Amino acid sequence: MTERYSAGQRLAAEALGSALLLAAVVGSGIMGERLAGGNVAIALIANTAATGAMLFVLITIFGPVSGAHFNPAVSVVATLQRNITWSVCAAYVAAQVAGALIGVAAAHAMFEMPIVQVSLKPRSGAAQLFSEFIATFGLITCILATVRFAPSRIAAAVAVYITAAYWFTASTSFANPAVTLARSVTDTFAGIRPIDAPAFIAAQLCGALAAMLVMSWLLSPRDRPAR
Amino acid sequence: MTERYSAGQRLAAEALGSALLLAAVVGSGIMGERLAGGNVAIALIANTAATGAMLFVLITIFGPVSGAHFNPAVSVVATLQRNITWSVCAAYVAAQVAGALIGVAAAHAMFEMPIVQVSLKPRSGAAQLFSEFIATFGLITCILATVRFAPSRIAAAVAVYITAAYWFTASTSFANPAVTLARSVTDTFAGIRPIDAPAFIAAQLCGALAAMLVMSWLLSPRDRPAR
Amino acid sequence: MTERYSAGQRLAAEALGSALLLAAVVGSGIMGERLAGGNVAIALIANTAATGAMLFVLITIFGPVSGAHFNPAVSVVATLQRNITWSVCAAYVAAQVAGALIGVAAAHAMFEMPIVQVSLKPRSGAAQLFSEFIATFGLITCILATVRFAPSRIAAAVAVYITAAYWFTASTSFANPAVTLARSVTDTFAGIRPIDAPAFIAAQLCGALAAMLVMSWLLSPRDRPAR
Amino acid sequence: MTERYSAGQRLAAEALGSALLLAAVVGSGIMGERLAGGNVAIALIANTAATGAMLFVLITIFGPVSGAHFNPAVSVVATLQRNITWSVCAAYVAAQVAGALIGVAAAHAMFEMPIVQVSLKPRSGAAQLFSEFIATFGLITCILATVRFAPSRIAAAVAVYITAAYWFTASTSFANPAVTLARSVTDTFAGIRPIDAPAFIAAQLCGALAAMLVMSWLLSPRDRPAR
Repeated sequence: MTERYSAGQRLAAEALGSALLLAAVVGSGIMGERLAGGNVAIALIANTAATGAMLFVLITIFGPVSGAHFNPAVSVVATLQRNITWSVCAAYVAAQVAGALIGVAAAHAMFEMPIVQVSLKPRSGAAQLFSEFIATFGLITCILATVRFAPSRIAAAVAVYITAAYWFTASTSFANPAVTLARSVTDTFAGIRPIDAPAFIAAQLCGALAAMLVMSWLLSPRDRPAR
Repeated sequence: MTERYSAGQRLAAEALGSALLLAAVVGSGIMGERLAGGNVAIALIANTAATGAMLFVLITIFGPVSGAHFNPAVSVVATLQRNITWSVCAAYVAAQVAGALIGVAAAHAMFEMPIVQVSLKPRSGAAQLFSEFIATFGLITCILATVRFAPSRIAAAVAVYITAAYWFTASTSFANPAVTLARSVTDTFAGIRPIDAPAFIAAQLCGALAAMLVMSWLLSPRDRPAR
Repeated sequence: MTERYSAGQRLAAEALGSALLLAAVVGSGIMGERLAGGNVAIALIANTAATGAMLFVLITIFGPVSGAHFNPAVSVVATLQRNITWSVCAAYVAAQVAGALIGVAAAHAMFEMPIVQVSLKPRSGAAQLFSEFIATFGLITCILATVRFAPSRIAAAVAVYITAAYWFTASTSFANPAVTLARSVTDTFAGIRPIDAPAFIAAQLCGALAAMLVMSWLLSPRDRPAR
Repeated sequence: MTERYSAGQRLAAEALGSALLLAAVVGSGIMGERLAGGNVAIALIANTAATGAMLFVLITIFGPVSGAHFNPAVSVVATLQRNITWSVCAAYVAAQVAGALIGVAAAHAMFEMPIVQVSLKPRSGAAQLFSEFIATFGLITCILATVRFAPSRIAAAVAVYITAAYWFTASTSFANPAVTLARSVTDTFAGIRPIDAPAFIAAQLCGALAAMLVMSWLLSPRDRPAR
C-alpha cells in the first residue's frame, strides 16, 4: 500500500471515493428513470455511462492515495495477497460502507427525496446470484491482470469492465458488498431489498475468491524460459 | 502558468475555448431536443456526449497555452493556490464570459434561432443548489488530484467527470459560473432563467472552495516516510 | 508468441477470454432486448457498448499471456505469418470454440434460460456474406497495422473497431468463426441459424486473408530511404 | 510527410482509409435509421459512435503511412503549411474522393441497396453553411493544436471532436469535401443533394483557412522567455 499518506488520509480517500461512487450510481439511476419515459434500457444506458465515468475518475485520483478499492471484495483480496493487513482491511471496509451510505443520502438530497429509504426491489434467485458470482469473478480477474500487466490503465480497465458488466449480467453487476449495502437503503432505480443483500454479498465474495485462485495460477510465469 | 505564450494568446485561448464549449453545450442541446421525439433522456445523452467530447478536445489543445480553465471557479482556485495573480484571474474570467456568450450566439446562428434570447427555464431550490455544490466540489476535486497524480490525463478526467455529473446531479451539473451566465441567455434545452443564475454561481464557488480545502489536506504527503 | 507462459496457461487464457467475450455478447443482447421495449437500435447500442468494453478489457489482460486472439481468423493469420505453428493454432482454435460455448451457456444461466439452445434467426444472402467479408477485412487490417505502429493501443483499436463494425455492416459484424459457432447455439438477440454459420465463417476467412495480403504490401517499408 | 512509404502505398492508404470511413458513415446511417423506429436522435447516436470509432482506428493505423488525411481540407492546409507539395496534394485528393466513392458503394452493397444513387436530401441555407464553417474551423483547430502539443493523441482528438460536432452543428458536421461529394451519391440517412454540395465544400474550405490563420498566431511561441 501507499505509505506516503497517513491512515486518516487513506481512509478519507476510501470514504470520499465510495460516497462519490454511490452518488453517481444512485443519482444517475434516479435521473435516468425520471427522463427515460418508461424505457428501462435508456435509463440503464445513462446509469452505465455515469457509473463507468465516475469509476474512471475516482480510480485515477484516489489510486495513488489509498489504492482506490471502494469495494470490500477488493480489500479482502488485497489482504489475502498480503498487500494490506486485516486491521487495515477492516478500517477500509468501514470507510467504504460509511462513505457509500453518505453518497446515497447525498443523491437523495440532490433529487429532493427522503434521505433515509429502504428498497422494495426484489433481486433474488439462483440466476441473480450466479450473475453476481460471474460479475465479481470478472472484476477481480480484470483488476489482478491489469495491475500485473498494465497498472497505468487500471482506471480505464475497471471502468470499462463495469460498463460491460452492467449489461451482460442479469443482476446489472453490483459486484461490491459496500455498494450492495448502500443500494439497499434507496428505493429507486438502483435499489435492492435489504433481505436480498446478504446472498448478493456472499456470491460476490465467492466470485472474488474464485478469480484470485484462477489468476494466481494463470498469471504465474514459468520458472524457466521455454526451450 | 505557461509563460511561453503572451497574455493575448492566453486570453484568446480562454475565449475561443469557452466559445467552442458553449457552442457544443447549447448546440447539442438544441439538436438533441429537436431529434429526440420528446424523450428527454435521449436528448440529454446526446448533450452529455457532445459536452464531454468537446471538453476533451479543448483541454488537450488549449491546456499548453492558457491552462484551459474555461471556468471562473477553476481560475479562482488557481489564484488562491498562487498559480496566477488576481489581475490575470480577472482577465481570464472576462475572456471566459465573453467567449461563452459568443459561443451561445454561434449556436443560435447555426440553428436559425434568434441570436439574443433570455431563458425562461426555472432552475431553483435548495436541491438544485446542493446539486451545483456537489457538482463543482467533484469537478475541483477531480482537477486538483489529476494535476497532482496524472497531469497527462487531465483532459480525459475532466471530460469523463462531466459526463457522469450531467446525470448524477439533479441540476445536470453546470459547475461553471461562465457557463451559467451564458446559458441564461439561451431559451433552449440548456437554458437557465437569469434570476436563478446568481445562486447557482454562489453554490458553485462554495463547492470549489470546499474541494480546495479538503484536497489540500487529503493530498498533502506526510513529512516523513512510513517506518 | 509469449513463451513466459505455459501452453496450459495460454490455452486457458484463450478459453477464459472467449468465454467472457461470448457471455458479454450474448448476455448484453438478452438484456438489451428485454429492456429496450421493442426498439432494436437501443438494444444494439447496449450490445455494442458491452462487446466493445469487454474486448478492451480482455485484450488488455490476456494479451501478454496468449496474445488475446479469441478468434480463429486471427490465429490463422498469425500462423500464416509464422508467429505460431499450425499445431498451436489448432489448440488455440479448440480452446476458443470451447470457451465460447461455455460463455454462451453462462449467459443463458444468468438470464434463467435453457442452457442449450439452437438459433432460429436467419442470416444469409450475398449481402450478409459481403458484410462479413468487409467486417473481417477491416478487423485484420486494424490488428496488423496497430501491432506494427501502436502495439500498446491494440486493445483500444480492436474494441473501437468492433464498435463501429456492429453498426456499419449489415450483419452486425460477427467477424470471428468461434463467435459465429457459439452464436448459433443461442436463440436470442445475438443468434444465427446453424445452417447459416458455415458461409459466414468462409466469408470471414476470405476477408482475413484479403486483409493479410493487402497489408503485407501496404505496410512494407521501402528498401531505401527517399531521396 | 512520411517518406518510408512509396507514393503508391501512401495513396492506397488514403483511398482505403477514405473508403472505410465512408462505409462507416453511410452504413451506420442506414443501420441506425432502419433500427431506430423513427427516432432520429437514436439513429444519429449510432451514426456518431460508428463514425468516431472508425476515425480513431483509421488515424491510428494509417497515420504513419500517409498522414491519415482522408480529407481534402486537411491536405490543402498541409500544403499551405509546406508539409506536402501541390502535386502530392492533388494526388491525395483524387485518392480520397475515389476511395470515398468506393466506400459508399460498399455500404450500399452490404445493405442490398442500388449501388449507384443520388441523394434527394436538401441541406442548404446560410445556417447550414455557417455550421459547416464552424465544424471545419473546429476540426482544423483541433488537428493543428494536437499535432503541436500531443501528436500521439491525434486519433483520439479527431474522433472525439467529430463525435461532438455531429451534434452541435446544425449540419451534423460533414467538415470534409471528399465526404461531402461521396455523401451526395447516397439517398440514405447521410445523404446530401449534389446541388447543395459545392456550397458545403466552399464553407468547409473557408473554415479550414480561418482556423489555419487563427492558429498560426495563437500557437506561435514568444521569441523570448518571459521574465
